[in-house]
Amino acid sequence: MSKIIVFGGDGFCGWPTVLHLSQLGHQIVIVDNLSRRKIDNELRIESLTPISSIENRLNTWKRLTGKKIVHKNFDVAKSYDELLQLLYDFEPDSIVHFAEQRSAPYSMKTAKHKIYTVDNNLNATNNIMAAVVESELDIHVVHLGTMGVYGYGTAGMKIPEGYLNVKVENDDGALINNEILYPVNPGSIYHLTKTQDQLLFAYYNKNDNIRVTDLHQGVVWGTQTKETKLHEDLINRFDYDGDYGTVLNRFLMQAALRYPLTVHGTGGQTRAFIHIQDTVKCIQIALENPPLPNARVSIFNQMTETFKVRDLAKLVSHQTGAEIDYIQNPRNEDDENELFVTNSNLLSLGLSPIYLSKGLMEEVSDISKKYIDRVNLEAIPCSSFWCKKPKKI
Amino acid sequence: MSKIIVFGGDGFCGWPTVLHLSQLGHQIVIVDNLSRRKIDNELRIESLTPISSIENRLNTWKRLTGKKIVHKNFDVAKSYDELLQLLYDFEPDSIVHFAEQRSAPYSMKTAKHKIYTVDNNLNATNNIMAAVVESELDIHVVHLGTMGVYGYGTAGMKIPEGYLNVKVENDDGALINNEILYPVNPGSIYHLTKTQDQLLFAYYNKNDNIRVTDLHQGVVWGTQTKETKLHEDLINRFDYDGDYGTVLNRFLMQAALRYPLTVHGTGGQTRAFIHIQDTVKCIQIALENPPLPNARVSIFNQMTETFKVRDLAKLVSHQTGAEIDYIQNPRNEDDENELFVTNSNLLSLGLSPIYLSKGLMEEVSDISKKYIDRVNLEAIPCSSFWCKKPKKI
Repeated sequence: MSKIIVFGGDGFCGWPTVLHLSQLGHQIVIVDNLSRRKIDNELRIESLTPISSIENRLNTWKRLTGKKIVHKNFDVAKSYDELLQLLYDFEPDSIVHFAEQRSAPYSMKTAKHKIYTVDNNLNATNNIMAAVVESELDIHVVHLGTMGVYGYGTAGMKIPEGYLNVKVENDDGALINNEILYPVNPGSIYHLTKTQDQLLFAYYNKNDNIRVTDLHQGVVWGTQTKETKLHEDLINRFDYDGDYGTVLNRFLMQAALRYPLTVHGTGGQTRAFIHIQDTVKCIQIALENPPLPNARVSIFNQMTETFKVRDLAKLVSHQTGAEIDYIQNPRNEDDENELFVTNSNLLSLGLSPIYLSKGLMEEVSDISKKYIDRVNLEAIPCSSFWCKKPKKI
Repeated sequence: MSKIIVFGGDGFCGWPTVLHLSQLGHQIVIVDNLSRRKIDNELRIESLTPISSIENRLNTWKRLTGKKIVHKNFDVAKSYDELLQLLYDFEPDSIVHFAEQRSAPYSMKTAKHKIYTVDNNLNATNNIMAAVVESELDIHVVHLGTMGVYGYGTAGMKIPEGYLNVKVENDDGALINNEILYPVNPGSIYHLTKTQDQLLFAYYNKNDNIRVTDLHQGVVWGTQTKETKLHEDLINRFDYDGDYGTVLNRFLMQAALRYPLTVHGTGGQTRAFIHIQDTVKCIQIALENPPLPNARVSIFNQMTETFKVRDLAKLVSHQTGAEIDYIQNPRNEDDENELFVTNSNLLSLGLSPIYLSKGLMEEVSDISKKYIDRVNLEAIPCSSFWCKKPKKI
């Protein structure tokens, strides 16, 4: 069993990952400055599910399983010396890096939110990479990236896993083959920072031979994993506000409240999805399959299926009886796009996905309906029906 | 005449740019926290030329020309509110952004230097772009980038200006044409930050229609411009240390000290060059030719000729009588590379270059020989002959 540091181990993906890896017998240290909880306070929202303090979470886990998880509370983007000392003291085999501000709408709220996102995300990644180099330990770094680095798909072409074959004409008119990082097209400051992270990983990999796996993740759905279900103190976050909630979570809340599901424009935007249980499994797979020494950065597309938003609405409608309203799209994006994605790396390494058509009812019954009394209606996006009345189309 | 803010206006490229633009009649505000002078203190070095304090520089300029230049001392990477207030108060037409740590060796000294370079350069650029958006002023941003974003050239292919035509095979096997940002290959953390800057500019240009010109500059040689020669209080920096000195400046110092010129490896590394007088002219040209509204980022290669290092040594040797020693290359790079660069954008807009073969003697007589009594021998790179004896080859 190995020693793993999980940066951002108190967050939505981080917490279930920590429990999953601990359950597998790994020795885990969480580094988290609880920034996600502070943002809840800033935005005056709460997770729909009643999440416990990190102390309660860890005490309950210890009581249930006998496994001790250590939590260090510092800001990885600001505290390089503590970070380096932790590497020296703990000597991890691997690092999982979730310690980034992960909401696209939050990153776009004001200039200060743009600045926080760039400052936090890039310094976090650079500090981790610089510390791994300085420690001289052979540490495999697993990073949670996003499918959003690719933009929203290219007509007629399946999105590959990170790298793209291109042909370039040389000065003699001959076509030369090259493999390059897929040209990026970020849709927000948050997505931009992930495209800049990619360049950091490529550089430290090339210059210092650091082994990196970058997971380009789709929209995560679902709330609970096998471990977070063990006790209510271990419950995972469910975000439904306009900044951190996903389109699926909004539909689930609307259905639970017996309101129509609001679809933006024609709902023809295609998105890639993955269940949180598959997220933690993918991270396990990535940790167990590090790149070879001297290999380039491994990039996996961490998603299991794609849906058009209107089809997602139809699925929720079918399972809950909710109606669907089509309203004006508040985002600056094309109404219709196709998205074909390669994800054979993780499938070939043993991922067996949970599909929306099968797992959705559990979210309705165990989460959105169960905790509906905790809802704060005002926190639900203004683009939906209970703020300024949107134009129906 | 227009209003221009020069970020980093006290530095090696910034200072002569400020004087050139002021001489042309533009109203100039310098924002500079004097970080380059602080780094001199940190490294215990000084410019070979005796540079004056910023106060003396500006007072002398006013006395000589009657032109007033304002200096604001704050850190653009940390002081967003001051930056935004300055935009509201001064309402600039254009911004020139030099406010980045610009030495590759300095960026690689220790982890702390990597962290400073990433934190400073990316937050500076992001703060400027976020403030331009928030100000809602129509400001043209001119940025000093580097040829180093391209890496060291591609066999058989001329490097284009920023964008590359590629052909990509779609799922039907047809070749589709695309124009992409030239795939980057940075050789240091400093160069890495410039590749990350490119993504910031592309994003703010796409999302907020900010007009940006990014100048991918070669190695700058020469010290003085027409304006900095007017009085010794206006003299520009000449760096000869291992961190901030260029290969040409090292050769000039060695020649002035009557030591052999030290060439690394075979000296077959090709570099792109430009004279500081042409730098300030290029920035003038960029300011006078902003991109059209809604146009993508304009990228110009700001260089005028390429030289192999051994040919540069031969040129200096020929003009000064110095001998040449070939020693082991301390850098991790290929011994020989070719570099063919397109630079037609600036030439077509009126740049008329100063070439090394004609301008070099002035550097020898007016700078390196004239100020040789100020030299600190210990500051000259250890890779040259007066530190640990290098292996001759």
